[in-house]
Amino acid sequence: MSDKAVWPNFEAAGGLLPAIAQDATNGTVLMLAWMNAEAFQETIATGRAVYFSRSRGRLWRKGEESGHVQTVHQVLIDCDADTILLKVSQEGAACHEGYPSCFFRRLLPDGSIELVEERLKQPTEIYKKNA
Amino acid sequence: MSDKAVWPNFEAAGGLLPAIAQDATNGTVLMLAWMNAEAFQETIATGRAVYFSRSRGRLWRKGEESGHVQTVHQVLIDCDADTILLKVSQEGAACHEGYPSCFFRRLLPDGSIELVEERLKQPTEIYKKNA
Repeated sequence: MSDKAVWPNFEAAGGLLPAIAQDATNGTVLMLAWMNAEAFQETIATGRAVYFSRSRGRLWRKGEESGHVQTVHQVLIDCDADTILLKVSQEGAACHEGYPSCFFRRLLPDGSIELVEERLKQPTEIYKKNA
Repeated sequence: MSDKAVWPNFEAAGGLLPAIAQDATNGTVLMLAWMNAEAFQETIATGRAVYFSRSRGRLWRKGEESGHVQTVHQVLIDCDADTILLKVSQEGAACHEGYPSCFFRRLLPDGSIELVEERLKQPTEIYKKNA
């Protein structure tokens, strides 16, 4: 199997691919964000998760404001080389809302919502560093 | 918290949102595919994962050819309501390549590739039903 077949195919996707961060220890899916080739390369080079923020239009070094960095233990590529899976250790809360993961809400069959996680921090606590 | 804030915001994303399927029992991230509103609604209504195939341009009832259906136990929505996480029971192999998950390849720091899963079936076995 050649490296080329496995290297994420950013070009075919128009530059950005989805990247899933999963807790390396307990398997919790923490978040999904986006990577361009530069973010991917910096992630590999530094061992810290770096994404591309679509809203800010620039690299987003996860934790750069919040301190909630992700140390990357494994980088997995899917069969079509168009999705990335990172196995990480998460410092603090993965979610900007202060929950351990971004998937803290469950949709019930009757259409109602159940919270499935406890909030670790208030968002105002997370981002006060730059206030 | 209103339902509206949690219902996936397909419109803002141009119609399609990423959906992660995770094994409900062991936490393995099985695959990432895409959903439009119709796929999402059918998933909830039937309890079987239904995606939107970008290559085929139509609904893709996971397992419709392979028999490798996903029974959905939980539907989680992320903080921005733009990613869906399904906790599922996977029949057979999640991956069309015959691996338990689509993330069967690990990228090592030196740029080489390590297989991290055993293939369950050859792709020719999976799809021979319609041959």
